Amino acid sequence: MNRSALRQFCGIFFGLLLLPGAAIGAQGLRGTGDLGVVIERAAGQIQVISTTEQATLATIPGLGDLSHASVVFSRDGRFAFVFGRDGGLTKVDLLTAQIVNRVLQSGNSIGGAISQDGALVAVSNYEPGGVRVFDSTTLELIADIAATHDGGLSKVVGLVDAPGNRFVFSLFDAGEIWIADLTTPKEPVLHKFSAVGRQPYDALITPDGRYYIAGLFGEDGFALIDLWHPEKGVRRILADYGRGKERLPVYKMPHLEGWAIANRAAFVPAMGQHEVLVVDTDDWRARATIPVHGQPVFVMAQPDGRYVWVNYAFPDNEVVQVIDTETLTIASTLSPGKAILHMEFTPRGEHVWISARDDDRLNVYDTRTLERIATLPADKPSGIFFTARANRIGL
Amino acid sequence: MNRSALRQFCGIFFGLLLLPGAAIGAQGLRGTGDLGVVIERAAGQIQVISTTEQATLATIPGLGDLSHASVVFSRDGRFAFVFGRDGGLTKVDLLTAQIVNRVLQSGNSIGGAISQDGALVAVSNYEPGGVRVFDSTTLELIADIAATHDGGLSKVVGLVDAPGNRFVFSLFDAGEIWIADLTTPKEPVLHKFSAVGRQPYDALITPDGRYYIAGLFGEDGFALIDLWHPEKGVRRILADYGRGKERLPVYKMPHLEGWAIANRAAFVPAMGQHEVLVVDTDDWRARATIPVHGQPVFVMAQPDGRYVWVNYAFPDNEVVQVIDTETLTIASTLSPGKAILHMEFTPRGEHVWISARDDDRLNVYDTRTLERIATLPADKPSGIFFTARANRIGL
Repeated sequence: MNRSALRQFCGIFFGLLLLPGAAIGAQGLRGTGDLGVVIERAAGQIQVISTTEQATLATIPGLGDLSHASVVFSRDGRFAFVFGRDGGLTKVDLLTAQIVNRVLQSGNSIGGAISQDGALVAVSNYEPGGVRVFDSTTLELIADIAATHDGGLSKVVGLVDAPGNRFVFSLFDAGEIWIADLTTPKEPVLHKFSAVGRQPYDALITPDGRYYIAGLFGEDGFALIDLWHPEKGVRRILADYGRGKERLPVYKMPHLEGWAIANRAAFVPAMGQHEVLVVDTDDWRARATIPVHGQPVFVMAQPDGRYVWVNYAFPDNEVVQVIDTETLTIASTLSPGKAILHMEFTPRGEHVWISARDDDRLNVYDTRTLERIATLPADKPSGIFFTARANRIGL
Repeated sequence: MNRSALRQFCGIFFGLLLLPGAAIGAQGLRGTGDLGVVIERAAGQIQVISTTEQATLATIPGLGDLSHASVVFSRDGRFAFVFGRDGGLTKVDLLTAQIVNRVLQSGNSIGGAISQDGALVAVSNYEPGGVRVFDSTTLELIADIAATHDGGLSKVVGLVDAPGNRFVFSLFDAGEIWIADLTTPKEPVLHKFSAVGRQPYDALITPDGRYYIAGLFGEDGFALIDLWHPEKGVRRILADYGRGKERLPVYKMPHLEGWAIANRAAFVPAMGQHEVLVVDTDDWRARATIPVHGQPVFVMAQPDGRYVWVNYAFPDNEVVQVIDTETLTIASTLSPGKAILHMEFTPRGEHVWISARDDDRLNVYDTRTLERIATLPADKPSGIFFTARANRIGL
C-alpha cells in the first residue's frame, strides 16, 4: 500500500469513528472547487461551506483570535491557510475538517498571501513588523524579511502575491513599498521603493498582477507601481481626491484588496468620505465620484464586471449598494442584515454570499434578481473566502 | 452510515482491489483544484493529471472518438464532461477515475459548455445540427434546441456559456447567432440574430462574458455582439483584414475560444494568413498585424497578460511562438516537439502545458524562464484542460 493510499485508508477509518457526528467530521471524497471558509470571529472558529449545496459542511474550532482574519488556499483547493490577528498561521484540511498545522509566527499579524507556484505562504506582521515566509506543506520558516525602519521594524500591510513568485507589500511606518522575489525561496531578492507617501494602510494588485496600488492614510491619494516596469518607480494617483473636503472620522479603514476593476475602471473606496471613486485604468486619472450611503469598506466587482457591490462602515453597515458600472449610478440598495462585514462572489458570479455579523447569519443573493435565495446560521460571521481564490492572482 | 460515507467506503475498497495498479485507480481524498484532463485522441481515452505533482494520476479508456474533443468541468472540479466527435457526452469522475455516465447524444458533435450555475451541460451538434442541453448530474435531456434552417437543422459551432445562465452559439449554415436563456431550463428563451455573416466557424466570449465574437469562414471579418446590449445587434469587425491578400489553403481552422485578451487588445488568429491580428478592445478596430511563423491555430494569453502564446497548423506545427503584448513583437520561438496541438496555462500562469502529438509527449514549460521543466508520456495527446476552467466564464 503506498503512502497516499495508507493516508486515505486511515482517513476513512477516522471518518467512520466520527459517525454519526459526520456533520462536523470528514467531508469524504469530493471536489474542492465549490468549497469556502467563513470566519466566525468571536468563537475563533471557521465554517467550511459548499456553494453548491449552500450548506455548512463542518465547523473547525481552535484558530485563536480571528478578528480581521483572512484566508488563502493551497493550489489544489484542499487546504486553507488562516491568518489570525494573534499572529497565528493555521493550515486547515477542508476535506477532513481538521487543523493540520498551526504556528504562532508573530504577536500581531494582518494578512497573508500564497506564492504563484503555491509553495510559499507569506504573512505580514504588525508586532513585530516584517514579513515571514513559510513552506506551504510543512509551515517551516523559509525566510524572514526584516522590514527595517528607524532601528526597528515597520508594520507591514497590503501583502499580495505577484507573477514570478514575487510578493509585494507596503511598510506603514516607513512609507515604502517592497517587492520580494522568492525565485530562490531562502534568499529573497528585494526591490525597495522609498518615499511612496505617508502611511500606506492597505493595497491591491490588479487581477492581471500588473499594477500594485497602495492607499495612503497620512495623506490623500494612492501610490501606484507598474510591475511590468518597476524601473519607472512609484506614481501618485488621485492625489487630490479629498482636497477641500473635511475628512470624516474614519470608523473602519477601507479594504483595498476588494477593489473592483470593471468596465475599464477601478472602483475605489474613498477614505473618510461617503464616496466611491472611479479611476480610469488607462491613465489612472479620476473619471467620476459616486455618492454612496456611507463610508465604503469593500468595493467588489461581480465577476462579469456589470455591477460593483459596496458595503459600509458603522453606523451605515446594514446596507449594501449595487453600482451600475456603465452609468456609474446606484442600481439598487439592499438591506441584508445587521453589521454587513464581507461579501464573496461565486467564481462565475451567479451568487454573492454576504455575512451579517449581528444577525449571526450568512445571506446568499442571486446577482441577477437581487433576491435572497438562502440563509445559513453562523456565529458572528465576518470574512467569506471561496477556494476559487487559489486560481487567481493577488487574492 | 450515510450515503456519502458509504460511497466513500466502497470507493476505498474498490481502490484497494486495484492496488498495486493504483496508477489507474482511485485518486483518494485530495483537492481537485490542481487536476486536469489530457485527451489521448487516437486511443479514445483521457489522462487525469496533477499540475502540482506534474504527473499522470490515471488513464480512463472508453470515451469513443476523441478527435477534436473538448472538456468542461463541474463547479466542484470533480467531474469532467468530455465532448467527443462521435456525439458522445461522457461524465468522468476524476477522483475515482471512472466513467459515471455516458450518452451518445448525436451523430457528430463539436463542443460544449456548462451553465453559470453548473446545473446544465449544453452540446453543439453537426449531425444533426442544433444544441442539446443536459442535466449535469444525471445527463438527462432537459432541452433540445432545434437550430432550424432551410427545412433542416444548421450545424452549430462556437457554443459558450454566458452570465445569467445563458448559452450563446452560432449557426454555421444559417449565418445566425442565437442566445438561449435557460433561467427556466426546460423552456429556453431564444434571442436570434440573423444575417451575421457567412459561415461562422467558431467563436469566443471575452473573459467577463460581455462580448461574443464569431469568426466567419465564408467572408472576411468577425461578428461581434455586446451581450450587455443585445438590442444594438451585431457589429462586423475586422471586415477587411484579408482584403487584397490571397488566402492560403486553410490546413486547420483556427480556434477562437483560445483568443487572447491582454493589455487592452484581443490577439486573433488570422484565417489563412501567417498573421496574428491585434484588435483594440475599446473600439474593436485593428491596432496591428503581427507576422508569425505559420497559420495560427491557438492564440492564448498568459494569465498575467504579459505574453501571448501561439501554435500553428501543419506544416508549421513544430513551433510555438511567444508574443510580447507591449511591443507586439515575437519575444521567443520554441520547438517543443512534433505536432503541437494545444497549450494550457496553470491558472496563475507559472507554467504552460504543451501537447506534442507525434512525440507522444506532454511538455511543461516555465513561463518565466521559457525552459522545459518536465515531460510526461502521453498517447497522441491533443487537448489539455485544467479544472480551473470551472471557475471561469466562457471556458
